[in-house]
Amino acid sequence: MAYNDDTICAISTPPGTGGIAVIRVSGDKAVECVMKSWHGADLEKAATHTAHLGRITYPDGEILDEIVATVFRKPNSFTGEDTIELSCHGSQWIQQQLLSLLIKNGCRAAEGGEFTRRAFMNGKIDLSQAEAIADVIASSSKASHRVAISQMRGGFSNMIAGLRDKLLEFVSLMELELDFSEEDVEFADRSRLIELAEHIDNVITRLADSFSVGNAIKNGIPVAIVGETNAGKSTLLNRLLHDDKAIVSDIRGTTRDAIEDTITLGGIEFRFIDTAGIRDTSDKIEAIGIDRTFKKIDNASIILWMIDGTQRIGNIRETAGKIIPHCNGKQLIAVINKTDKLDSTGIQHIKTAIADVSPDISEISISAKNDINVDKLEQLLIETAGIPENNPNAVIVTNARHYDALCHAQKSIRRAIDGLNTGLSGDFVSQDIRECLHYLGEITGEITTHEILGSIFSRFCIGK
Amino acid sequence: MAYNDDTICAISTPPGTGGIAVIRVSGDKAVECVMKSWHGADLEKAATHTAHLGRITYPDGEILDEIVATVFRKPNSFTGEDTIELSCHGSQWIQQQLLSLLIKNGCRAAEGGEFTRRAFMNGKIDLSQAEAIADVIASSSKASHRVAISQMRGGFSNMIAGLRDKLLEFVSLMELELDFSEEDVEFADRSRLIELAEHIDNVITRLADSFSVGNAIKNGIPVAIVGETNAGKSTLLNRLLHDDKAIVSDIRGTTRDAIEDTITLGGIEFRFIDTAGIRDTSDKIEAIGIDRTFKKIDNASIILWMIDGTQRIGNIRETAGKIIPHCNGKQLIAVINKTDKLDSTGIQHIKTAIADVSPDISEISISAKNDINVDKLEQLLIETAGIPENNPNAVIVTNARHYDALCHAQKSIRRAIDGLNTGLSGDFVSQDIRECLHYLGEITGEITTHEILGSIFSRFCIGK
Repeated sequence: MAYNDDTICAISTPPGTGGIAVIRVSGDKAVECVMKSWHGADLEKAATHTAHLGRITYPDGEILDEIVATVFRKPNSFTGEDTIELSCHGSQWIQQQLLSLLIKNGCRAAEGGEFTRRAFMNGKIDLSQAEAIADVIASSSKASHRVAISQMRGGFSNMIAGLRDKLLEFVSLMELELDFSEEDVEFADRSRLIELAEHIDNVITRLADSFSVGNAIKNGIPVAIVGETNAGKSTLLNRLLHDDKAIVSDIRGTTRDAIEDTITLGGIEFRFIDTAGIRDTSDKIEAIGIDRTFKKIDNASIILWMIDGTQRIGNIRETAGKIIPHCNGKQLIAVINKTDKLDSTGIQHIKTAIADVSPDISEISISAKNDINVDKLEQLLIETAGIPENNPNAVIVTNARHYDALCHAQKSIRRAIDGLNTGLSGDFVSQDIRECLHYLGEITGEITTHEILGSIFSRFCIGK
Repeated sequence: MAYNDDTICAISTPPGTGGIAVIRVSGDKAVECVMKSWHGADLEKAATHTAHLGRITYPDGEILDEIVATVFRKPNSFTGEDTIELSCHGSQWIQQQLLSLLIKNGCRAAEGGEFTRRAFMNGKIDLSQAEAIADVIASSSKASHRVAISQMRGGFSNMIAGLRDKLLEFVSLMELELDFSEEDVEFADRSRLIELAEHIDNVITRLADSFSVGNAIKNGIPVAIVGETNAGKSTLLNRLLHDDKAIVSDIRGTTRDAIEDTITLGGIEFRFIDTAGIRDTSDKIEAIGIDRTFKKIDNASIILWMIDGTQRIGNIRETAGKIIPHCNGKQLIAVINKTDKLDSTGIQHIKTAIADVSPDISEISISAKNDINVDKLEQLLIETAGIPENNPNAVIVTNARHYDALCHAQKSIRRAIDGLNTGLSGDFVSQDIRECLHYLGEITGEITTHEILGSIFSRFCIGK
């Protein structure tokens, strides 16, 4: 890898103007490149983790800025290389000039994620930890942040490393047998091997299964709000979002475009999708909107079925007939709206009608307009999301690349179990185990390629 | 001042998401406030200017982030107080959470410029240096940056301090005489005093006069491009700006709105103002545009008079008659355009016509469309701007508040000189000197009020 040979620099703080900005320099010549423009203490002699006030000057001696340079000595830096962080005044002009000076002094402008890539290449972190850093920076809710931090700190890596250790023990026993194949010995007790393989399968399966939750945590839980026209879908959305993004009017069929917005409830991000009202319509554009509604249901995990409580029971049954067939495998919540206009008998009638149509539906009565029970609906959403609560140490897979590798690893280990059960020759079984090791190694980066690394780090911001 | 009693915190890096972000904490309890959420080396015992890797946790022990904390011990910090800079991952969520934790731990969210204000209050910098920090951050051209850096580093302050020392020597001699007034002695040689006062007047005047240049450097030099319709004003503007902001067409009178944009030439910022073509028009909207053109000329320092070289000489004389009366006290450059369609005799005729109208006008022949001599025009603009070249140590006043104080100081010192020349009583003269000292003290902040400080620092960004 020629990647680690040179010294890189980049602005690491957010783009724009601020009080201060930090430019990071990393590589063998980091100190040398800075010293060419530096007036202050001799950074070559500076101890690691020390900060120094000094001046950066142009080659002709004119002062660019007064800055603080913090020195991190190899290997005690984020990248594992000599690193200097230059904290300058946060003018964009100074940031650009300082970067130009460093490049003139022999640095190269870093690519996106290149500092993290070097941390990985130098063995400071594994690949899943490197990926987690991007997730930490991108996370915007408590739950997504927690999962990313746990992964960055190596929770997931340790679990994968544990699996790999067990698999290596397994495969070494199998391969020892192969070395003595002519003597037809069996070093490894088959039933113990099967037990071990099944344990590994269980752990891999649990990790792979956590991806649906992990993905929901990372990308938010899609919630579609559907129902008859004028049931109050837009009013509810506005209430939940605490603003007036959707146009609300009492003309039926106001909402034609699906409007998306996100809200964080209980540390979990929900992506709300408003939809066109479901009804028979002759309006062509509205018909397209209704068609879209059903497509939106396909992409949602939770469906809020809004019911205008003042409607005839017959209408409610009819709408249910249109919506419920689209909700297979989804969480469906019936929301009886406009309770401010109903008495308790009226509400009970609707509840009975809903239970008749489908006994498993959760239901709740609210008035979106008067903000009655909307907080309870929020609570119900959090419960329905089913995100396991509050274990900061739970290992949850959030990365599609990891999920993919886990699925492959799962297939390999299951083939190995089948082989063991059917008395397949040891070299075939050990081949399956090696394959499983390979896929787990892809997650942590023991097994990797330029292409995989390129696609991972290109998604990082510059300067990290 | 209750201002310095508490401990403040703020995000100091630009707003947004990045690789890292820096939160600055300053005050007596900086270390204590951070330590409440910190897991790592004991920062109470940390030496000044040392960086420490550690974790920030919520009160329940859950990890918010892994960060680097750099400790600056009082008085060896920017503010002069104990300061910790926390370098966290650049997610907006982490930045906000970290800030909230610090506030729960006893910090107060800093106001705009409060760190710099504390640096001033603690005597680390004087007021003009504090103001220069905001200018350093805002500067976007080499010239404006250079002036701001020089002021931040104390060039201006030292000059003012020198003047104050001389004035104090002066006034003490005057006041010594007053103590012995009954004896009618003269400790101070009047002619030496006048000489000293005149020297001070000279320095103040030079500084005050530098404001017109300083202001141009700081805010850019306004250049109006005027001329007949279809002379090629918009084409030239596009050529100078290297983009297509102004709409160019060959229909006369295309440009009705004055379009402003800036370009940096030779390290100096020019603000270009495109204007409607000057001609007799019956179009109402266009007439308003032409009216605006003359108003724009009033605000410009340099006027580029674009001449369509293919016009009849009579027309050129006529347009000159309209433009020149508006150009009193401005730098006027006649730009003969469309030279690609002219021979040298034609160009000479126009030059002669221009010289007839006004012998002092600089002139240049170009083809905006074919990019002929536009670089020479740029050079001419730099020369015309008349910004003294390339002395990084030149003291130039860029701040209207300083200019105002200098003008007052100038009046006081001149009254003192008059008094000395007319043999006015020493106590009147010393009163004028004291007044001059007062105004100079306002610049560096020896003399100041809450209101002045408030209005200065409210213009700073948060976190500086």
